[in-house]
Amino acid sequence: MPSIDLNCDMGESFGAYTIGDDAAMMDVITTANIACGFHAGDPSVMRDTIVSAREKGVAVGAHPSFMDLYGFGRRRIQGERPQDIEAQIIYQIAAIQGMATALGWPITHVKTHGALGNMAAEDETLAGVCVRAIRAVDPGLVFITLPYSQTLRAAEAAGLSVACEVYADRRYLANGMLAPRQMEGAVIHDLSQSVDQVLSMVCDGKIPTIAGTHLQVTAATVCIHGDTPGAPATARALRDKLTTAGITIAAFAKPGTPAVKTALPHGR
Amino acid sequence: MPSIDLNCDMGESFGAYTIGDDAAMMDVITTANIACGFHAGDPSVMRDTIVSAREKGVAVGAHPSFMDLYGFGRRRIQGERPQDIEAQIIYQIAAIQGMATALGWPITHVKTHGALGNMAAEDETLAGVCVRAIRAVDPGLVFITLPYSQTLRAAEAAGLSVACEVYADRRYLANGMLAPRQMEGAVIHDLSQSVDQVLSMVCDGKIPTIAGTHLQVTAATVCIHGDTPGAPATARALRDKLTTAGITIAAFAKPGTPAVKTALPHGR
Amino acid sequence: MPSIDLNCDMGESFGAYTIGDDAAMMDVITTANIACGFHAGDPSVMRDTIVSAREKGVAVGAHPSFMDLYGFGRRRIQGERPQDIEAQIIYQIAAIQGMATALGWPITHVKTHGALGNMAAEDETLAGVCVRAIRAVDPGLVFITLPYSQTLRAAEAAGLSVACEVYADRRYLANGMLAPRQMEGAVIHDLSQSVDQVLSMVCDGKIPTIAGTHLQVTAATVCIHGDTPGAPATARALRDKLTTAGITIAAFAKPGTPAVKTALPHGR
Amino acid sequence: MPSIDLNCDMGESFGAYTIGDDAAMMDVITTANIACGFHAGDPSVMRDTIVSAREKGVAVGAHPSFMDLYGFGRRRIQGERPQDIEAQIIYQIAAIQGMATALGWPITHVKTHGALGNMAAEDETLAGVCVRAIRAVDPGLVFITLPYSQTLRAAEAAGLSVACEVYADRRYLANGMLAPRQMEGAVIHDLSQSVDQVLSMVCDGKIPTIAGTHLQVTAATVCIHGDTPGAPATARALRDKLTTAGITIAAFAKPGTPAVKTALPHGR
Repeated sequence: MPSIDLNCDMGESFGAYTIGDDAAMMDVITTANIACGFHAGDPSVMRDTIVSAREKGVAVGAHPSFMDLYGFGRRRIQGERPQDIEAQIIYQIAAIQGMATALGWPITHVKTHGALGNMAAEDETLAGVCVRAIRAVDPGLVFITLPYSQTLRAAEAAGLSVACEVYADRRYLANGMLAPRQMEGAVIHDLSQSVDQVLSMVCDGKIPTIAGTHLQVTAATVCIHGDTPGAPATARALRDKLTTAGITIAAFAKPGTPAVKTALPHGR
Repeated sequence: MPSIDLNCDMGESFGAYTIGDDAAMMDVITTANIACGFHAGDPSVMRDTIVSAREKGVAVGAHPSFMDLYGFGRRRIQGERPQDIEAQIIYQIAAIQGMATALGWPITHVKTHGALGNMAAEDETLAGVCVRAIRAVDPGLVFITLPYSQTLRAAEAAGLSVACEVYADRRYLANGMLAPRQMEGAVIHDLSQSVDQVLSMVCDGKIPTIAGTHLQVTAATVCIHGDTPGAPATARALRDKLTTAGITIAAFAKPGTPAVKTALPHGR
Repeated sequence: MPSIDLNCDMGESFGAYTIGDDAAMMDVITTANIACGFHAGDPSVMRDTIVSAREKGVAVGAHPSFMDLYGFGRRRIQGERPQDIEAQIIYQIAAIQGMATALGWPITHVKTHGALGNMAAEDETLAGVCVRAIRAVDPGLVFITLPYSQTLRAAEAAGLSVACEVYADRRYLANGMLAPRQMEGAVIHDLSQSVDQVLSMVCDGKIPTIAGTHLQVTAATVCIHGDTPGAPATARALRDKLTTAGITIAAFAKPGTPAVKTALPHGR
Repeated sequence: MPSIDLNCDMGESFGAYTIGDDAAMMDVITTANIACGFHAGDPSVMRDTIVSAREKGVAVGAHPSFMDLYGFGRRRIQGERPQDIEAQIIYQIAAIQGMATALGWPITHVKTHGALGNMAAEDETLAGVCVRAIRAVDPGLVFITLPYSQTLRAAEAAGLSVACEVYADRRYLANGMLAPRQMEGAVIHDLSQSVDQVLSMVCDGKIPTIAGTHLQVTAATVCIHGDTPGAPATARALRDKLTTAGITIAAFAKPGTPAVKTALPHGR
């Protein structure tokens, strides 16, 4: 029976500030990407999020970013040396890996956040930086990447396990990139269309594109958004529809298990 | 032959800002306490400092602090919940442990910085917080503590290895606390007097106090300051005098070796 | 006819983080204390909050704090020199005064935030720091202070205009301090009791205390909380009851008018 | 007799971190651009720098930047809305203007820092943002801009006074831009060549370019660097040579005088 993971960015509150309905999302998703304090999150939020994931059996991973709390990691920052970005990613992965292990619920993966993730998907050098940082901390960690991206290529070239991430609510261009939000029809608002797109990607290994063509994909995880009103209900509805369609919803790596043991060949 | 370690706070530069003459100090000391980004340091500075220590065979450890870059971790911050301070310490130790391991030069110990260290030495609750944080990340890590402190008591009660830290250039009160800097005679400016005090502590296990009494101590490491002009020369002179007096200068834990294997019973 | 002002802390969002329902509160209050970027707020939030206040005719003022975004300015920070805290307060007042003037809606007052405010109310030195900082920027600014506080004494001694702040939902100790929240009965949950307390303070100039006694007060403004669910509705209900009781609800200083011209003798 | 100003970035220390030899530079320069806390500086450093400038009769101004302490304002940050950058610049100018006025030594000008300055020089939208921010706070402030830049064009179009800034130690391209540092011969290391270049620009109003051509310029100020070892001595030597050549060294605006009164038509 085909299986898919549902991942969501979590633990993005900071100090007195709360963002997202993490408690509700934790009941729906199977994998949580946890902010590491650079674009969001703080040590207490990280701890609480890991404990909550452990209680629900949800897999946790690092969600490193540029150092940019004010911009929530969404601003493209130019002019840093690659080795400095690498050190920043190592720092963040190490911090959450150590904390999660201390809490008895080790991380299984890494997903880069915001501008760092977008820039790395397009830029070979930055993609290499991400891959080297992950391998330096733990080569058993799975890297969540977009299909047809520089990050996927770099990860495969380095022998890193990858979990290919697809979107239920976004259309794709013919080259495998997401259609820009401002393009008409770029966002899928109809649940049944979202379900159909996921079924195509998961069961048939095919991404339908806006050009009418199809691209091959080995989808491992669907990106779920948690920071809009109604997000948990929308996510729950998608999950139920997929289950009804015969899809197993499960994490791509065994939750709470040291990464080195769970590393499996996922990929494109 | 008696042996002593020389430890110094290192890696406290940040971004474009440089503090201390780390390169010169690295030739003199045997143990480096490396800032973890909360009061000073950043991921690049941490990496460079660990690499430099590895090249010189100097042991490295975590130097966690309150989250206070502006105050350099020297401001006493009240009103945080103990579990939140614990999470902050875990985060910092984990971050540097993961990075140091990735660089092939694992950390051996933890020393708390500035106001956090001073407050924990006096406060039983905060001392317990530090000890629990260290144990949560790695019970093999050695904890550098002051003698006659709450941190030492908490560490011993929890079975954590400790390295008792003494000062060459500061006098002690009858209760084992450091004489406050503003007290006349609190700071020792004469090198031969500093050497004599260290010899007393290392060879005889006795701290001479300002009251004329002596207190027992199992000194494991001498605190060396690196952020004043002339600090490397002063430290070098002390080291040479101690060597001449027949003291071996060596790290209290095997440098660059996973903490769990090097953990030895230090400390009274 | 007696008159009272309703003040509320506003503009405490930061970057991607939102806190409080400022839009709703702006319809109820007459004076907004706007965060200046040290414990909360950022330049864009400040601008938006000032513009919103201008549209509603609400008076605006500076709400300076310790430099503590993570702790939301609620942590007591020890070990700073008075002159450095003074510089921080000057910086914050100047920043918002310049921005508000540029937007055509000058600030009228200052209210210190969180731990800074609490510590200054108790500490003569810190109270003097606040008063000197306000006078340095603009001696026409009104200082919102608690009755029977060091800040009130320092302001009066320096000839600074003050607006005495009272609480509708908190009981007072015999010495004029607020009863600590953990004390039974410290918080008033019944609206009619809140109204009665405000009427006593505004119409009779008397604070009823928990000891059954009364203290004199010249109440200028009631502190309204905006960061709890239901806060706007609660504030609106209080405002309506006070209006029904014949109290005029109006800012203590003419909104949007250069402070130097609006300075009036408010006080104890 | 021809006259020229010497300006230098000052007050870039932060907390425990010191950068540059401000005390020595203050004896050489006539105008200080003071960091406002976004890329460097803090309220205490700002105060100390303004007081030092006042004692030496040096003009002071705002040196606003992107919010980027870690990157010292040198990183190009993409993805902010123009109105948000405008609010950040207003905030910074207002903060230092209020503080400087409180200290009896009002600011006379604004110079944008690092990446913000470089990007605004090239980008019409960002240049407009800078000009609107300055005018919003005080239309009497002089704007230090590069010749042949978008910032100069935007300032002139808006009727803002400008002080055209030239370099003594950098060669110019035929289009008036600075030759990139990595280009051979881009940096002038010979003092007499630097003096000759300044004399050409100040006395003849001509910038010699690397192509052998000359460009017209009305030079108002020379940019002096203060953060390299030996910077004060180099600056002093340049100043002495210019004085010997008959150039008056003086601020382009009357130091410590409210900007609105000192605004004079400087320009291209």
